[in-house]
Amino acid sequence: MSKGDETRDAILTEATSVASKVGLTGMSIGQLAAHTGMSKSGLYAHFASKEALQIEILRHTRERFVDRVVRPALQSPRGLNRLRTLFESWLAWSEAFEDGGCLFVAASSELDDQPGPVRDALVRDERDWLELIVTIAATAVSEGEFRSDVDVEQIAYELHAIMLNHQHTSRLMQDPRALERARRAFDSIVERALTT
Amino acid sequence: MSKGDETRDAILTEATSVASKVGLTGMSIGQLAAHTGMSKSGLYAHFASKEALQIEILRHTRERFVDRVVRPALQSPRGLNRLRTLFESWLAWSEAFEDGGCLFVAASSELDDQPGPVRDALVRDERDWLELIVTIAATAVSEGEFRSDVDVEQIAYELHAIMLNHQHTSRLMQDPRALERARRAFDSIVERALTT
Repeated sequence: MSKGDETRDAILTEATSVASKVGLTGMSIGQLAAHTGMSKSGLYAHFASKEALQIEILRHTRERFVDRVVRPALQSPRGLNRLRTLFESWLAWSEAFEDGGCLFVAASSELDDQPGPVRDALVRDERDWLELIVTIAATAVSEGEFRSDVDVEQIAYELHAIMLNHQHTSRLMQDPRALERARRAFDSIVERALTT
Repeated sequence: MSKGDETRDAILTEATSVASKVGLTGMSIGQLAAHTGMSKSGLYAHFASKEALQIEILRHTRERFVDRVVRPALQSPRGLNRLRTLFESWLAWSEAFEDGGCLFVAASSELDDQPGPVRDALVRDERDWLELIVTIAATAVSEGEFRSDVDVEQIAYELHAIMLNHQHTSRLMQDPRALERARRAFDSIVERALTT
């Protein structure tokens, strides 16, 4: 990495942390300048606009998400095992954001009514994510663990619901049983899909 | 209503609409002044601070929520019927916010990392809401429709998950099958709880 790339990467890491606390639109360039110890014009030298920065924050978060959530799942055996690894990696990912929770969850609620390129980028990311859950659930069908007539899109829908709710239960409500509830919900979604 | 109360109520209605689009913290007093055609100092005559206004927006939304979601459920027969009415009223409530979606959903994700009196008020509201779902699910147990060993708190957790995800599926992803998916998820949560 060149010095410029390193600086850019350090800004993005800091910006992602700020955005996960106050939101992508809530974050101001002034606030980010204070956090990084850079001037506003120094920041604008790396990112042409606040919108460009927001899109880069999503890209940066997506890369980390692929490393921490998608890769471990794809490296585990096809089928139910892989689906469970995906779910557990997501739970670990969500818990790892000590200060602000999963940025995608926060951005989804923040941007749903704000049309534009940042929302478009987020929708593409979320579509990829839902399709990945569908694809992985389908490996449990082809491995003969799930019945061939299960609706894998409905399974992805219900798993995604539990993920959103986990954030609510653990971060907002600070319920000590949040993880236990999420895992029980996962188990019952799986149980209904099993052959026999 | 006195003239002052009417003005205050009109401001709250407008403020709630703005907040459901840009968020409770995203909303500025200047923006609200532009929307209502009032001066900033005119607004501060009705609400001592932005924080006081945010808490009043939650209270205002809660009143409408009780009217539109809680009351219809409590007026329908105890048991599964009441639980279904609650769920359907919530779906209708969520669809009714043409511009901004359910304010409680947006605020939950926005405020989960922002300690203070606004977050505290929201947590109280959400606790009441979850307890209401638990209480209504329990009427299906006492009416003999749900098995006596079902965990009604887990049912409330899973129903709440579907509600959060409905907002995501319909508003962010604009999935035309969002309502159908939400209802199928509701049905399978119920099915697992039924006395066969």
